[in-house]
Amino acid sequence: MTAEIISVGTELLLGDTVNTNAAFLGQELAALGISVFTQTVVGDNPKRLMRAYQQAYERGADLIIATGGLGPTEDDITKEIAAEYFNKPLILHEPTWEKIQGIFTKINPNQRATPNNQKQAMIPEGGHIFVNNNGTAPGIYMENDERMMILLPGPPSELIPMFLEQAVPFLRRKSQTVLVSKVLRVVGVGESMVEHRIKALIDEQDNPTIAPYAKEAEVVLRVTASASCEAEARAMIKPVTVKLREILGSAVYGEDDDTLEGVVTDLLQQRGYSLACAESCTGGMLTARLVNHPGVSEVLREGIVTYANESKVQRLGVDEKLLARYGAVSAEVAAAMAEGVVKSSGAAVGLSTTGIAGPGGGTADKPVGRVYLGLYLPGIGSRTKELTLSGDRKKVRTRATVAALDFLRLALLEK
Amino acid sequence: MTAEIISVGTELLLGDTVNTNAAFLGQELAALGISVFTQTVVGDNPKRLMRAYQQAYERGADLIIATGGLGPTEDDITKEIAAEYFNKPLILHEPTWEKIQGIFTKINPNQRATPNNQKQAMIPEGGHIFVNNNGTAPGIYMENDERMMILLPGPPSELIPMFLEQAVPFLRRKSQTVLVSKVLRVVGVGESMVEHRIKALIDEQDNPTIAPYAKEAEVVLRVTASASCEAEARAMIKPVTVKLREILGSAVYGEDDDTLEGVVTDLLQQRGYSLACAESCTGGMLTARLVNHPGVSEVLREGIVTYANESKVQRLGVDEKLLARYGAVSAEVAAAMAEGVVKSSGAAVGLSTTGIAGPGGGTADKPVGRVYLGLYLPGIGSRTKELTLSGDRKKVRTRATVAALDFLRLALLEK
Repeated sequence: MTAEIISVGTELLLGDTVNTNAAFLGQELAALGISVFTQTVVGDNPKRLMRAYQQAYERGADLIIATGGLGPTEDDITKEIAAEYFNKPLILHEPTWEKIQGIFTKINPNQRATPNNQKQAMIPEGGHIFVNNNGTAPGIYMENDERMMILLPGPPSELIPMFLEQAVPFLRRKSQTVLVSKVLRVVGVGESMVEHRIKALIDEQDNPTIAPYAKEAEVVLRVTASASCEAEARAMIKPVTVKLREILGSAVYGEDDDTLEGVVTDLLQQRGYSLACAESCTGGMLTARLVNHPGVSEVLREGIVTYANESKVQRLGVDEKLLARYGAVSAEVAAAMAEGVVKSSGAAVGLSTTGIAGPGGGTADKPVGRVYLGLYLPGIGSRTKELTLSGDRKKVRTRATVAALDFLRLALLEK
Repeated sequence: MTAEIISVGTELLLGDTVNTNAAFLGQELAALGISVFTQTVVGDNPKRLMRAYQQAYERGADLIIATGGLGPTEDDITKEIAAEYFNKPLILHEPTWEKIQGIFTKINPNQRATPNNQKQAMIPEGGHIFVNNNGTAPGIYMENDERMMILLPGPPSELIPMFLEQAVPFLRRKSQTVLVSKVLRVVGVGESMVEHRIKALIDEQDNPTIAPYAKEAEVVLRVTASASCEAEARAMIKPVTVKLREILGSAVYGEDDDTLEGVVTDLLQQRGYSLACAESCTGGMLTARLVNHPGVSEVLREGIVTYANESKVQRLGVDEKLLARYGAVSAEVAAAMAEGVVKSSGAAVGLSTTGIAGPGGGTADKPVGRVYLGLYLPGIGSRTKELTLSGDRKKVRTRATVAALDFLRLALLEK
């Protein structure tokens, strides 16, 4: 089955609202094995909306899911144009009208539904209703011999539960195949290098397919299988992910919803290590990234942003002579920061960053983007890594943050 | 001028990525006075993309802005199909190719750009290039007698600066009237409250227009005048911004490209104060936000993320009895953290956060979202603020970060 998503609303065209509904529906339809080849956003304009419906079916969609524009005001036209397309009259649906009146009275016993609210209880003849438990506008399903349409209310708090609780079971009964995806998460290798390494594998695959794409400072590989049931699809995916892991080795840090900070937290916890961070150029970003992960409180002791040199000396005990001799941006100072934060905090592991995030501060010897990572591990001592990162100030800092977490991850994997 | 936005990428159809680019472009095009009646999302499929281009122009678009699919891999086809549509051969653009090779060599002197990277330096004949300062894929402008197309890279960190710095001036030259915008930035007041306060002013304005929209934890007011030259437009904008500032008072923290962290840095510098932060729930986000501003090194001494209670005691000298009596999440501990970071760092001003970011850890008395801010100022001493913030873990932390910066800003304005 092929579906198109049509989101209706001028606020989407003006960018005042981000179209999270389309993303939600995209994920859910993929999970149902329903292919979506096009999404469209149109404003509250009768002609353009009618054309959007027509073009979607002409492109081959079996099903249109239209969201938004089911409200009580005059510019809400999604249902009216759909009824016109299917050539059905709108008929007052008494149970819905009673429900809407009840909602108004519940909010305020003296309040009455206004006549324009009755618009929301008008249903195209023969339409199936999805009850709205979180608002006034019901969802509607319509079909003729070859075409199906589902109308859903725009607010995510109404659309999401209505779709999951009522539309999903409804669509499942209509669909034959399932699509199942598995995601592998790769760090420390660029998108083109990942693709270069797995190109042969991508080319020889048809089902499952392998799709690489770049996220912020990481690469995601999505393996998707189409089969008659979920177990069959999962069995088809398995050997492909095994091969991908063979090729990419430890650059694969996790799967599905894993995060780098979560993986690092788990590795620290398994080894019984506590962590402290000493940051300069990342300026708190490294610690903040770790704190994204709720479970980090089990392992994170503290993070010290020693932005000024005095702070490096005072808080971490970095030797002033070292700073004078090598400069704050140096492998030597990175190592001293990592060791210093371990000794002064009592944590087992220390992780540090120092670098030139730009836009100023670069030299011929140490250009903008030069970053040194420091790591102090129990029983091993210090190690450092030199990086030269591209991008603006924020990108250099984000990349340094990811590189630091990966530096720690790979060291923990050795143990 | 009428534009359509075509977002290219299977990850958008699958809902793995939310289409924030379309919202951003929608806002920016509206500000330029360019109408957008349709947005489309298509996957990385040559036939469907070609049809999307054709249908957009058939619907009457003068300009297509296509985003994404400019990467080095085989499924990146946005440029190739555009060249086919305009019937132009792709030609290697040497400066772009040199730039890409330079980026690779900079990352690692032993690394070479792979052959597939050269794909990104292939430009349709006669195309105008928008340089990518944050990645490898350049933007491209193409036209024939009646149709224009702009191709932009998909990652927002590349698309946004490229569009603002290069495409906006370019599009402005193509249009006859000048549209000039001034942005006022508001913090500490929600969007609906801002709108409520300035509604009368919005309603009586036609040119300039006033458009409020919500950004992450702040509200932006865009005042746009259409005139025959820039000076005339600026003269029309001036009295409107004066009125807005009268109504909103100190909630307006800045204009145009001002950032809250930049404004706070300037205020500290003007008063000759240095700053240190002590963070708990924000976990480094507050210091990292300050470090976004390159000039912060003049005033920021350090940031201490005292995530564990021991760290609060050891690094900041917070009294253990205080922690036992009031709990780590309390106004008393927030005050002690702010004072403690001043005394232990030697900075003049101390700013602290402690709170429950969730998802766990909430109680009836102190629910998830409860945050205390602490501030220590020379000659004044401590003050604190209690907040109850909504949203998930990340949102609570982001909102707490902004609230802390604003708390400091308003206190500095009193002095």
